[in-house]
Amino acid sequence: MIEIETRGTHETYFYLMPLITLTTDFGETDHFAGVMKGVILSLAPRATIVDITHGVTPFETAEAAFTIGEAARYFPKKTIHVVVVDPGVGSERRPILVEAEGQYFLAPDNGVLSLILARSRCKVRRLANRRFQLKEVSNTFHGRDIFAPAAAHLARGAKPAQFGPLVNDPLRTPIGEPTRIGTRCWAGAVMKVDRFGNLITNYHVSRFPQVQTRPIVLNAGVHTVEKVVRCYAEAEPGTPVALVGSSGYLEIALNQGSAAKALGLGTGASLELSIY
Amino acid sequence: MIEIETRGTHETYFYLMPLITLTTDFGETDHFAGVMKGVILSLAPRATIVDITHGVTPFETAEAAFTIGEAARYFPKKTIHVVVVDPGVGSERRPILVEAEGQYFLAPDNGVLSLILARSRCKVRRLANRRFQLKEVSNTFHGRDIFAPAAAHLARGAKPAQFGPLVNDPLRTPIGEPTRIGTRCWAGAVMKVDRFGNLITNYHVSRFPQVQTRPIVLNAGVHTVEKVVRCYAEAEPGTPVALVGSSGYLEIALNQGSAAKALGLGTGASLELSIY
Amino acid sequence: MIEIETRGTHETYFYLMPLITLTTDFGETDHFAGVMKGVILSLAPRATIVDITHGVTPFETAEAAFTIGEAARYFPKKTIHVVVVDPGVGSERRPILVEAEGQYFLAPDNGVLSLILARSRCKVRRLANRRFQLKEVSNTFHGRDIFAPAAAHLARGAKPAQFGPLVNDPLRTPIGEPTRIGTRCWAGAVMKVDRFGNLITNYHVSRFPQVQTRPIVLNAGVHTVEKVVRCYAEAEPGTPVALVGSSGYLEIALNQGSAAKALGLGTGASLELSIY
Repeated sequence: MIEIETRGTHETYFYLMPLITLTTDFGETDHFAGVMKGVILSLAPRATIVDITHGVTPFETAEAAFTIGEAARYFPKKTIHVVVVDPGVGSERRPILVEAEGQYFLAPDNGVLSLILARSRCKVRRLANRRFQLKEVSNTFHGRDIFAPAAAHLARGAKPAQFGPLVNDPLRTPIGEPTRIGTRCWAGAVMKVDRFGNLITNYHVSRFPQVQTRPIVLNAGVHTVEKVVRCYAEAEPGTPVALVGSSGYLEIALNQGSAAKALGLGTGASLELSIY
Repeated sequence: MIEIETRGTHETYFYLMPLITLTTDFGETDHFAGVMKGVILSLAPRATIVDITHGVTPFETAEAAFTIGEAARYFPKKTIHVVVVDPGVGSERRPILVEAEGQYFLAPDNGVLSLILARSRCKVRRLANRRFQLKEVSNTFHGRDIFAPAAAHLARGAKPAQFGPLVNDPLRTPIGEPTRIGTRCWAGAVMKVDRFGNLITNYHVSRFPQVQTRPIVLNAGVHTVEKVVRCYAEAEPGTPVALVGSSGYLEIALNQGSAAKALGLGTGASLELSIY
Repeated sequence: MIEIETRGTHETYFYLMPLITLTTDFGETDHFAGVMKGVILSLAPRATIVDITHGVTPFETAEAAFTIGEAARYFPKKTIHVVVVDPGVGSERRPILVEAEGQYFLAPDNGVLSLILARSRCKVRRLANRRFQLKEVSNTFHGRDIFAPAAAHLARGAKPAQFGPLVNDPLRTPIGEPTRIGTRCWAGAVMKVDRFGNLITNYHVSRFPQVQTRPIVLNAGVHTVEKVVRCYAEAEPGTPVALVGSSGYLEIALNQGSAAKALGLGTGASLELSIY
């Protein structure tokens, strides 16, 4: 019997309401995401489950890596993030638990945690303990059979060391970084197209702070973007502009329109950035 | 240290589990909505977050105004509604807090709260207090940097007056009301197409109660709808009918089909209603 | 005044946090699902609401039946499942409450609970008690006016018997079972296409255990599938294969691709399975 400590710290709250997030490519129309929530809440009825997204493009581990890489930092310590984009489900790829920056990450070892692993010192373990899995483990739905139960058991207080042995070589898919191709010129790429059709590039403001102060030319296919603005509304309607987006990456955007459509570009498109 | 009062009132529950709703055009595939939830739960771990929708058509403030206008009344007193359809993010448009009908609304001052503002006496404040914002405020994602933290601080007990000064002139985008164009004839429009393809018009039963009892003719492009039914199943398959929908607006509908597709009409389409 | 029993049983947790799931065809872009949540939380502020999906194809009761049939078993006892795919809303079809396998199901009596009703002994009641409905009941949105309030009242402790009289003849839409058409040959069909384009058939491993051990030929339109694999990653890229999916049904799948697109098949497509 306990009483609730309302002047308590995050830790106290966590004890009462562990936070579990879900990032998958399961979509919104099947029973898959619902089933994962059922498994979690059967084992950890007090857990708060937050959908980050179930709309990762099917099988696109790099997109999932970007999504959880951007989202995780905004969640409290001890949050348990479950990331299931898992084309290799049932094969030899390992299910892993990563401890990083005071949070937990459960995912297949296929690169979906590349940005998390790149960012800080991590402890990585293989999810080997059958006690923390459903009794029957299928070859096609480890979200339900392995990752959801692992999240619930962590939420209930199981210690990371109980899940399995340390892993020294988790898969780290290199994130495409811009490469210098001239004195003032870097080859880069469109990393992601967001819902509004903004083209998120891999030029990050921490590496290219000059984009905010100096003239630039950004070549994107047959198009050239030269105007840098501070916010979308500063752009003249119909004219593609560049701006530093909310994640710190340079974006090509259109005021109240889709730059992706207007320029006919998508994820992976080649770019060239010149800074003068 | 407190104990939970289970025979308590809504107020007591609210104290323990403040309710925050989200209505945005962020979509379901990016990290944006997830990030807002992370920010909220970092500051207010006991909050219950409810998605109303993240599927507002990008930049469509009128659509968001309709959605929150319809949804808010079904939530309890003290609910905190966050509405972020915000093409002007980072520009001069103000972020505001509206107190109306015992609830709170956080949104850009761009018309998304027009239906709420039209309905009752409101107190409107500018979100000026930097203490209730993230340390760094971007020019492109105020959902994360201003509105989510404001919601969390309200949920934790901050008083509206602490957020900023009163605003006397919040933007109220007029809702298109039908206009009389003949003795028995009103020009109106399709206000929204719902998921089923029902064409929700701006003829409301409170202004046009006769649609339920008298013969009508509703001209929609080249189509004429004369049959009024009580429920979808009363309509003959393939024949578009009119009925009073769940929000009180006259709808054009098809039994188990999409009236929007069948009639080739969408949001904004002109209508003429004659009542005999 | 109560204190929380943390070493309690599911029952205790349930009392504090009743679990309500939603399965509808309301989509993610309108206010409909949000309104249902508002109604539930107004009446039962401690309820935890879990979306199974709002993306059932409009009006497709068989698809909803499959979805809740698959998902329900993974939720705890006493979970309250609300299933609203309801083309007959406002007509004579009855709203019902089903007690099955220690859980509750609220739905229109139109076949959406067929798999639940087929599985076990059930008690079925008509939702007749006006006390457990909104004051005004529309003819077009019983999700809001009847099913959401019923779920909330159940969550608050109302007894099933209080909702209305027993029903002896709930609608059970037969689930298409494969039929034998030769010594070793069964005619079947595609029951569902999932988000990944996997074609889920109606051949269940419990009836056809040989598919895991013996050679098979599965004819699907002009295509023939002969290779059976254990997991998606075992299939050669580009070659459609068969495997036993996470629900126990034989699926036609493509490694990291859509079998539905590659084979040009969808829900309802005819199949012939031969086992040698």
